[in-house]
Formats: sequence, structure tokens, C-alpha cells
Amino acid sequence: MRTSSSEPGGPGPRLVLASRSPQREAILRQLQIPFRVCVSRYHEAHRHGDPRALAEHNAAGKAREVAAREDVGSGELVLGVDTVVVVDGRVYGKASSADEARAYLLALAGRTHEVWSGLCLAGDGREERRHDATLVTFRELDAAAVDAYVASGEWRERAGAYAIQGIGSALVRAVEGDYWNVVGLPVDALVDALEAFGVAPFSWL
Amino acid sequence: MRTSSSEPGGPGPRLVLASRSPQREAILRQLQIPFRVCVSRYHEAHRHGDPRALAEHNAAGKAREVAAREDVGSGELVLGVDTVVVVDGRVYGKASSADEARAYLLALAGRTHEVWSGLCLAGDGREERRHDATLVTFRELDAAAVDAYVASGEWRERAGAYAIQGIGSALVRAVEGDYWNVVGLPVDALVDALEAFGVAPFSWL
Repeated sequence: MRTSSSEPGGPGPRLVLASRSPQREAILRQLQIPFRVCVSRYHEAHRHGDPRALAEHNAAGKAREVAAREDVGSGELVLGVDTVVVVDGRVYGKASSADEARAYLLALAGRTHEVWSGLCLAGDGREERRHDATLVTFRELDAAAVDAYVASGEWRERAGAYAIQGIGSALVRAVEGDYWNVVGLPVDALVDALEAFGVAPFSWL
Repeated sequence: MRTSSSEPGGPGPRLVLASRSPQREAILRQLQIPFRVCVSRYHEAHRHGDPRALAEHNAAGKAREVAAREDVGSGELVLGVDTVVVVDGRVYGKASSADEARAYLLALAGRTHEVWSGLCLAGDGREERRHDATLVTFRELDAAAVDAYVASGEWRERAGAYAIQGIGSALVRAVEGDYWNVVGLPVDALVDALEAFGVAPFSWL
């Protein structure tokens, strides 16, 4: 458990990120929202059923598990997030091998897929849930391009086997919606949820 | 003039970035495209007329000025880029004061604006030109939120007085198109232009 450099008694929100994702941490640092990390032990529900409902369900499960802990203070807001990549109703998680990563990327090439996320902010005995979707359109890719990208190793630990904020930016023609949602945290949904808790945009600066 | 860690005789492209923009450098590093920087002395054309044509004209002006120099090798491709923010046909450049930054952000709040860029890749006696546009939709913002953002100082040296890749990500509801174009370099257009020079995606890795 790490603590950011914020003063604990400051006027801003005191966020607890219920995730081990370095991408989510990086986005909170970019926003300069003070936070600490408290990784959730929640076990994600299985990857079937409506991906939108599932992402929100998993986000709430993560946030609640952490919010119920004794070391989480009454002024803190716990942030749970879950992200899934969907094409033709099929959910693409993390690839388990280079071959699977190749297959994922060839399935995404030349097409538009959806990145769904659920977000839950829990604290003070209540919770705010949001969900969001971003459309991502990939370039046409031949086998040589996919092989070269997979050889970089960047597919590891990424839903859909790519990182839009890395070398993988060259895979993408266009996005439609919240770009940060594709990286791992829907910033617009977070700012909305913070407002619902009375935290105005940029009041944390 | 700096040189990246690439081998100069390697198989990848040898890019020369004709810009002093740290954002453009960061995007090329993220793509892991080898490059060196050679800041253009080209004076940008005035900010009137069609912003799309102007951005491409300025990008070509920057690239040509650097490509004509003696120290640019025959195997090198010079990259010129120009970016403008447009609302209602009016071009928003960099704000010159905190008051002007406030006025720009209030003009963008709750609306969709266009980020236009021109790109020119010049080398081997020819050039490839591209342009691209991304739509950016801002949240509704009240004066307190704008004041807090402006106080962060992030508006300085940014077209439109915001940085989408910084604290400014909380200003934005959605983008439509190439996200990296808003940061400062249209990655999709660059990959297209490289292909036109025979450089396949990820062949530089």
C-alpha cells in the first residue's frame, strides 16, 4: 500500500485505487488526483453475459471489498474499475501466448471494436456507478505487421493484446469516445462520479 | 541536435523531426521510431485562410527547410508537422496570458472543436503530405473549474490553452479521430506516409 504525496487532511478527494494496474495509477497521477493503492482481493465474475453489466458488476465488487476494510477511512473514496474488449459480442481478455495475441490482433485488424468499462466509487456508505464505451478502429494489418508488433512483447497483460498508449498507437486509425477508457480508466466517468460526491473538477489541484 | 539510440545504418526509417515540440518527440519515442531532432527555422505563414490548407502548407515549409540542409543525409526522411485548433472557423493558437487562456477555455467548454494537423515527410527528392482532423468535445465548465485549471499553468505553450495528455484530460468528454493528433502528431497519418516511402508498420522495431 502506497500513499501519494497529498496531505491527508487536504480539501481534495482522498481516493483509494482498488487495482494493481500501473496504467490506472499513471492516469490518476496525470490528473494530479491524490490517491493510494489498495489492491482488491475480489474475484472477477466470469466473462459471460452482457459485457457492460459485467464490467460494472466487477468494478463494484472490487470497490466494495476494499471499502469494507478497517483501514479505509470514512473520508476516503474507493475506486473500482473493470475494462473489457468486445468484438461481435465476444469478450477479448489478456492473451495467454504470443500465438493467441496474434490471433486477437488479426481479429481486430481493419475493424472497429468496443472497449467497455465499469467504474464504481464507494465511500460514506454509498456508491456511484458509471459505465462507458469507446470505439476503437484498427488499421488493416498484414501478418508481418502483426508478427513485428507481437515480437515487441507489448501484448502481455493487456486486454485485446495491445497498448494504445505504446507502440500499439500505430495499430489504431481512430477512437470515438473517452481515449483514457482504452488505456484503462474512464476519466470522464470518474470526474462525473466525483462530482456526484461533491468534488468539483480540478478542486483537487 | 540530438540522436536517438538507433543504429544509423539499421533497416528502419531514419527520421529527422523538424520541430522543437517535446510532445512530438515523446510520441516518436513511444512508437520506438528512431529519430533525431533538427529544429526548423521556417517562419509559419499567418493564421488566416483555410486552417487545413495552412497546416499542410506550414508542415511542408518546415520539412523542406530542414531537408535542404547539407547535414541531412540522402537516406533520411524529414518530418514536418503543424497543428491548429479551430472553433467556428476561428483558429486558436497559444494563449499569451492567463486571462486569454481563461477566455479560450470558456469558448471551448461544452462544445466540440476541431484539431487540424498537416504533416509532411520529405526525403529522396520527394514528399508525402497528409492532413487529419480530430474532434474534441469538452465538458461543461464553470468559472471555478476553468480558474483552477488555468492556475495549474498547463495552458502555457499549448494550442487552445490545454493539454489533453495532462491534467487537461479532465476537461474532455470525448474525442473522435486520431487522439495523438490532439497531443501534437497524427500517428495514423505518419504511418500512412511512411508506408508510401516503403516503410511498413513496425518494421522499425
